[in-house]
Amino acid sequence: MIMQRAVKPEQTTDIFAIGGTKLNSRLFTGTGKFSSHEIVPKVIEASGTQVVTMALRRVDWKNSQENILNYIPEGIILLPNTSGARTAEEAIRIARLAKAAGCGHWIKIEVIQDQRYLLPDNQETLIATEQLVKEGFVVLPYMCPDLGTARRLQSVGAAAVMPLGAPIGSNRGLQTRELIRILIEEISVPIIVDAGIGRPSEAAEAMEMGAAAVLVNTAIATAYQPVDMAKAFRLAVEAGRTAYLAGLGARRQEAEASSPLTGFLREE
Amino acid sequence: MIMQRAVKPEQTTDIFAIGGTKLNSRLFTGTGKFSSHEIVPKVIEASGTQVVTMALRRVDWKNSQENILNYIPEGIILLPNTSGARTAEEAIRIARLAKAAGCGHWIKIEVIQDQRYLLPDNQETLIATEQLVKEGFVVLPYMCPDLGTARRLQSVGAAAVMPLGAPIGSNRGLQTRELIRILIEEISVPIIVDAGIGRPSEAAEAMEMGAAAVLVNTAIATAYQPVDMAKAFRLAVEAGRTAYLAGLGARRQEAEASSPLTGFLREE
Amino acid sequence: MIMQRAVKPEQTTDIFAIGGTKLNSRLFTGTGKFSSHEIVPKVIEASGTQVVTMALRRVDWKNSQENILNYIPEGIILLPNTSGARTAEEAIRIARLAKAAGCGHWIKIEVIQDQRYLLPDNQETLIATEQLVKEGFVVLPYMCPDLGTARRLQSVGAAAVMPLGAPIGSNRGLQTRELIRILIEEISVPIIVDAGIGRPSEAAEAMEMGAAAVLVNTAIATAYQPVDMAKAFRLAVEAGRTAYLAGLGARRQEAEASSPLTGFLREE
Amino acid sequence: MIMQRAVKPEQTTDIFAIGGTKLNSRLFTGTGKFSSHEIVPKVIEASGTQVVTMALRRVDWKNSQENILNYIPEGIILLPNTSGARTAEEAIRIARLAKAAGCGHWIKIEVIQDQRYLLPDNQETLIATEQLVKEGFVVLPYMCPDLGTARRLQSVGAAAVMPLGAPIGSNRGLQTRELIRILIEEISVPIIVDAGIGRPSEAAEAMEMGAAAVLVNTAIATAYQPVDMAKAFRLAVEAGRTAYLAGLGARRQEAEASSPLTGFLREE
Repeated sequence: MIMQRAVKPEQTTDIFAIGGTKLNSRLFTGTGKFSSHEIVPKVIEASGTQVVTMALRRVDWKNSQENILNYIPEGIILLPNTSGARTAEEAIRIARLAKAAGCGHWIKIEVIQDQRYLLPDNQETLIATEQLVKEGFVVLPYMCPDLGTARRLQSVGAAAVMPLGAPIGSNRGLQTRELIRILIEEISVPIIVDAGIGRPSEAAEAMEMGAAAVLVNTAIATAYQPVDMAKAFRLAVEAGRTAYLAGLGARRQEAEASSPLTGFLREE
Repeated sequence: MIMQRAVKPEQTTDIFAIGGTKLNSRLFTGTGKFSSHEIVPKVIEASGTQVVTMALRRVDWKNSQENILNYIPEGIILLPNTSGARTAEEAIRIARLAKAAGCGHWIKIEVIQDQRYLLPDNQETLIATEQLVKEGFVVLPYMCPDLGTARRLQSVGAAAVMPLGAPIGSNRGLQTRELIRILIEEISVPIIVDAGIGRPSEAAEAMEMGAAAVLVNTAIATAYQPVDMAKAFRLAVEAGRTAYLAGLGARRQEAEASSPLTGFLREE
Repeated sequence: MIMQRAVKPEQTTDIFAIGGTKLNSRLFTGTGKFSSHEIVPKVIEASGTQVVTMALRRVDWKNSQENILNYIPEGIILLPNTSGARTAEEAIRIARLAKAAGCGHWIKIEVIQDQRYLLPDNQETLIATEQLVKEGFVVLPYMCPDLGTARRLQSVGAAAVMPLGAPIGSNRGLQTRELIRILIEEISVPIIVDAGIGRPSEAAEAMEMGAAAVLVNTAIATAYQPVDMAKAFRLAVEAGRTAYLAGLGARRQEAEASSPLTGFLREE
Repeated sequence: MIMQRAVKPEQTTDIFAIGGTKLNSRLFTGTGKFSSHEIVPKVIEASGTQVVTMALRRVDWKNSQENILNYIPEGIILLPNTSGARTAEEAIRIARLAKAAGCGHWIKIEVIQDQRYLLPDNQETLIATEQLVKEGFVVLPYMCPDLGTARRLQSVGAAAVMPLGAPIGSNRGLQTRELIRILIEEISVPIIVDAGIGRPSEAAEAMEMGAAAVLVNTAIATAYQPVDMAKAFRLAVEAGRTAYLAGLGARRQEAEASSPLTGFLREE
């Protein structure tokens, strides 16, 4: 019996690297909005993440109990972000401070001028990215999904491109699905969907579409049980990635029987 | 810092039983459409399923190599379905044959009169369910999501109700999402989403909504790598269930910062 | 220049009849939820409707000021509904009362047992439809979209079938789009989408799909300016119907230039 | 009886002006992809449009039969576009040629580098817009919906901002709905949704959201009956605009009866 099967997916090995560092986990997490710092290491462990983002401003250097860095387990890659920056210049300054403070040389560029939807400013983001790449940072820019900007970010050396699915903290999912799909097709550096993902099913969908990874913070932090939700996201990301590699079947307008439908009793 | 969190989910323990049998896996699978029988046991293992459906007609009793039952590992609960039946009477007859043939006393009712979309006939399904419950079967009726029918199926003793997400084999996902959501709220027996689920993300979404389980066949069988896809669905179902129990956060119209946004450099 | 165009639509003349009565307007309206009776005739006029539904119970026979019938312009076809009925028997009794009271012989069957989502009960609806057709009524049953039930309603003589798009009064649109699409394809009596339509764009979409008509009440009654909203729905229904007859173009995954894209200046 | 009604919409008069010119029609159309030039004036008339876009390159100056300008009725505002341009410089050059050729001083900027999805390049578009505004053009830039770019286009003097709903010619509708919604909220110049709209219902939805106008070309040109489809879009745009001004009712999770539901017969 011959049957229409899924097309062989293009990518059949599963290499994922950012700035030369190989990563096993495709779920990035954050440290914002949790009810207490104490829960953060448990969430990180349950999520299986290897990369954790945090706002540099939240790092309280004088008070070790309040210093979020003390709650991030060893071996985790720090991805300080430039939240609070409204211009490329401010973002660059924050990035340098982060590096000087020992947060490593990875930086997530966030330049936000819009206070209601907190949408990233693509133009300032591009300027900051170009400069910080030159200074040796591994730069991951958060951006509004737009192919032209993504191409330029790639060409100035961004290590990945992080388009938003929906406004930060909205838990509204992949509202920009169509534009992200195009970025995944057209851009060669990893596409990491950042912001908006509110449910594990949405993280799985992003991965099925071929995203390299997702960053999830609010959806975990505002769950009733954040540690369990972190685990749920870990499973979902793995599910979506596995499905992408396994080759999803085609959608059909009509039905197609899984089982024979006619003649069962009539044939006898 | 006070922050709006998810509401505590109603259900906090994770009991799932069909007809008195406790199940650990919430993913049911099928045996149709695979390229060969040999792959079936590997798919079942990768999926972690405990319940497998198959069309009685596919059971070739005289030829053990062709007999699908010989490919189902021991310990798996058989859920023969009545595919091919066009009336309650035919479904009842197939159910009795299945039991007599040693397929156990679980039965999935499929009564289909429509040859294009293969939609179940709710009225005949109800008649067959009532009769077979009286005969001691554990009855799982496949149905078009409709609250009145679901209530009646429940009241005549259905062990679960299996609404479709989209036409069989279409891989089109939860097209009937809104009606399924209402069934989950209003019906007390387990709701098992059957038919239409084409991607792990869709299975995860059904579980996040509070479905008790999902049945997936075509999406696994028509994947490029069915065994890997079975694993992807296993992970997705676990992800969705874990998220449901962990309490999903609320969706918001606007944005909400994960990180502090103002005054970073200006405050200094 | 040859270009892929839309397929010729099946139906190219625009005949629409219910129970032998020819109708020009494909927008049915209702009388519930308005702030006052006085606005009703203005809404009816702005909507261009020829068929108006109202709950028999709202007809206050003793008080002409409160009697909604006094606010319905002459020439409008009354479509009393059986709201309040929980069984076929009650619906039949209300239908007979309506006829005896001079409301004509059209009847919209509403049998509702569910108090939260107000979903129609398909089984009782079928019983009432069959009986009232025999008694000479023009019967329009409100139902949960389910192909088997729709076929039976048609075969017992329903003049049209009225599937819901979403729960009554929810303004949530065509949540059951996929099932309605199948009814339109498979059923020959007119499909009138009833309940859930909250915006003119949703009414237009139903008409583009090939629905024969839509019934809109809440979306008009709860608008800030109900008379203007009635006009908006009239235009939208006409737009959707016109588009259906004009033959919609195909959707494409990629882009296709409207204007020449290459070589403009380079060719010179 | 008190009932929750729609909130009063902000805008209650209906002023619409581009570059100081008052317009009654909110439907812009184009001249590409039609089977013949002869149909163009009929489409324009049926659409009620006052603004028509065309690619300058399609203007065949030497052959009056082939010159699309000869098929555009008098009184229509020409909106030549810069299709074919890959940089700001090329767009500027095309705009100047259009003006010199007597096509007026309105210009739609299209700068496209991506050949597969034909997505506009926001950065080059901004440069061209700034320059052409300085030269006295009424500039309408086609853009990928991104709030930062839209703000800059506004601040350099764009007469309107034209975000895409989906790739040109795809007929896929408002895939970027969420981003367009934000532009409408945050930007004061008119938002004109351009590209992707494939059905009148989608045009109506854009108008309900508060878009100032829509531009439709492919969906009309590739319809089976383009003239009728032009009329359908005219009605839909008017429907959507009327609904926006009339104040849409709120959506509800549960049902709300249009008619009284309980006690009808039981009360007697």
